[in-house]
Amino acid sequence: MAKTIQAALLGAGTVGGGVYRLLERRKGEMPDKIGAELVISKVLVRDATKPRAGIPAEKLTERFEDILNDPDISIVIELMGGIDPAKQYIEAALAAGKHVVTANKDLLAEHGFALARTAAERGLDLRFEASVAGGIPILTPLMTCLEGNDITEVMGIVNGTTNFILTGMANEGMDFADALKMAQELGYAEADPTADVEGLDAARKVAILASLAFHSKVTFSDVPVEGITKIRAKDISYAKEMGYVIKLIGIARNTDGEIEVGVSPMMLPKAHPLASVNGSFNAVFVHGDALDDAMFQGRGAGELPTASAVLGDLIAVCRDMLANCSGRIRMNPYKGLPLQARGNAAHRFFLRLKVEDRPGILASVAGVLGNNGVGISQVIQKQRTEEVAEIVVITDRVATRHMEDALAIFRSMSVIRSISSVLRVYSGQ
Amino acid sequence: MAKTIQAALLGAGTVGGGVYRLLERRKGEMPDKIGAELVISKVLVRDATKPRAGIPAEKLTERFEDILNDPDISIVIELMGGIDPAKQYIEAALAAGKHVVTANKDLLAEHGFALARTAAERGLDLRFEASVAGGIPILTPLMTCLEGNDITEVMGIVNGTTNFILTGMANEGMDFADALKMAQELGYAEADPTADVEGLDAARKVAILASLAFHSKVTFSDVPVEGITKIRAKDISYAKEMGYVIKLIGIARNTDGEIEVGVSPMMLPKAHPLASVNGSFNAVFVHGDALDDAMFQGRGAGELPTASAVLGDLIAVCRDMLANCSGRIRMNPYKGLPLQARGNAAHRFFLRLKVEDRPGILASVAGVLGNNGVGISQVIQKQRTEEVAEIVVITDRVATRHMEDALAIFRSMSVIRSISSVLRVYSGQ
Repeated sequence: MAKTIQAALLGAGTVGGGVYRLLERRKGEMPDKIGAELVISKVLVRDATKPRAGIPAEKLTERFEDILNDPDISIVIELMGGIDPAKQYIEAALAAGKHVVTANKDLLAEHGFALARTAAERGLDLRFEASVAGGIPILTPLMTCLEGNDITEVMGIVNGTTNFILTGMANEGMDFADALKMAQELGYAEADPTADVEGLDAARKVAILASLAFHSKVTFSDVPVEGITKIRAKDISYAKEMGYVIKLIGIARNTDGEIEVGVSPMMLPKAHPLASVNGSFNAVFVHGDALDDAMFQGRGAGELPTASAVLGDLIAVCRDMLANCSGRIRMNPYKGLPLQARGNAAHRFFLRLKVEDRPGILASVAGVLGNNGVGISQVIQKQRTEEVAEIVVITDRVATRHMEDALAIFRSMSVIRSISSVLRVYSGQ
Repeated sequence: MAKTIQAALLGAGTVGGGVYRLLERRKGEMPDKIGAELVISKVLVRDATKPRAGIPAEKLTERFEDILNDPDISIVIELMGGIDPAKQYIEAALAAGKHVVTANKDLLAEHGFALARTAAERGLDLRFEASVAGGIPILTPLMTCLEGNDITEVMGIVNGTTNFILTGMANEGMDFADALKMAQELGYAEADPTADVEGLDAARKVAILASLAFHSKVTFSDVPVEGITKIRAKDISYAKEMGYVIKLIGIARNTDGEIEVGVSPMMLPKAHPLASVNGSFNAVFVHGDALDDAMFQGRGAGELPTASAVLGDLIAVCRDMLANCSGRIRMNPYKGLPLQARGNAAHRFFLRLKVEDRPGILASVAGVLGNNGVGISQVIQKQRTEEVAEIVVITDRVATRHMEDALAIFRSMSVIRSISSVLRVYSGQ
């Protein structure tokens, strides 16, 4: 009879339940896939008296110690999310000699390197493919297949909620509030959508992607974040008119040895592969010096897509255990690249200004941009009412600080009634 | 000082030269990436007197035995292509205890499982990510990240030459011969384009993808192949009119436990992710029971993209060597699924018929289809000259054998002047 490897789940919510059910489907194939049986023998939950579909009641426990102190359990699968107590549980599991699989982006984006070092020092696997872009294989390919590259750019649509909302706005002409409401009614957005719509969820994923792509420490707090709450239907229609699509983009670039990271709405040319990734789909675009361009797309969240990534990790952990090669360092910040000063990040910008409708205003706007070294690529001027006109500008590529200088002057000009929108426009490196 | 791992290249053509140069770029990082130095110390070429850009002359040899008998060389990188003598060289390398990295789709599509078994039995790595879709990580993700899935469909644009030609035909309205000529002039097609335009190259990749996705033996000769030489500008314009794009698609499906494989031109709905993969780009679309839909796109050929995949494999081999866990079986046909009888493969079809232009012909055509159980989804009838009309039909989903029965009757009908085109139309499973 084949050996049996036992794992424990921390959390039996949507993803935890999905992992349990997916392994049930596959369990007959495990001896062929890994050379052993694989069972989940304990499941940590808050309330063990509450029935969990498909999970036998006797596997449920409310005490982490039941798992930690069970010498037959070799792998802990952490799916609770958040920093506390997930961090303590993972550290305790590693200290007890147990391998860890986690989908916890919050934790990885803050403490990934420290946890990876602890695991490696103890000869244990720590895997976290599910922490970025759900079911899409991206972290493992970055650490293996693409390791021969000097990666210069990783950018992605890594939050399905915001992509669903922006797709709704683009297709139906809805404003943000209505699209959010629709997403909430359909279950694509949570009752408190802050982490998604303000870009925080995406920023955690960007920190993880940048850390792996550039072999340098990047944490959540390093990532400047701008969400999609200020996007108006009008921005989207101007974008369309000018040949662009607005997406919430997480970006990580290595420019001349400095790392730029950020999350913000961005206008992408319609022909960019990310521009046609719609609805709740995620995608990650990678540029490497040998690879050239590549893109990975799929389901970034959901019970079974996330379970797919977790079970893939679990299988890898088992294979390493049985081959006695666990704990190989998989997150090595050997390049130690510094972060770029935020004002130096170069982008093109889309500006939408409400201005007094009288002669010379466009010249003033153009003059301010020119004086600050901001070139103009496209301009649209439209009259809206008797007295107020709208000027829309797409600039040439310019360091963010020059754009900010120009914006500061615009704010002080009485003929400029308001700066309605400032959006980045994708322009390559 | 770090240990040094020595590898040898078989072949210094486009890809071989690319691998050498890429490793030169990365060599300073190898101790960080793998924990050792990695050098290519010998390169097998036909003519060692001919200089190779970037490769020192003293590393060139015309004798495979110089590599085989060098005990310091642990890894053989086979980039010659073709079955002979690549197969003998790889077998000899494995017999001599050397790990193998190869990009050889011809060889893998015929002898992959046997070579993988030999390598595993000897505790050696055999890796071949570059054999399918060039730089795009697809085989490793299938064998690792996606291993928890029951994969039901893998389909892809896995030949850049034909995608470049079809994109040219679609964008410029060119006919096949002109688009091929352009592709040859621009270096996207070879002087003898047969293997590409007849679908043979794609069929080899489909055999490898199907073998890995379904854990079952599928070889090149199992794959029915149809190329793109019969596609006319008119087919492409009808496709556009009906909301489709024509691509050369390699398909591998598990339907009710039977494997369908094939390469043929296929009409894809414009919204399918593969429909917008243009030019020389490749992409592979995967459906798994947990993953749902995912797609991987990028450069399927070329010096550096292919070198990216080879160096990724090489790094993996080194890591396994240093962790003493080489030779884990990575190609296991444990499911042993049978091939589906070719006539049972269900598709929708696009038919273009030239018929006599007189009353009742459309009714006859519809009658023949109906009598053979072929439902009609869309019809366009156009008059071309005084006496000849063109009927274009898209059918419902039907087993290929029923379509073939109907076509046999059409061929016998004097009112049907010719069957101009028969193309598959994508319809999911």
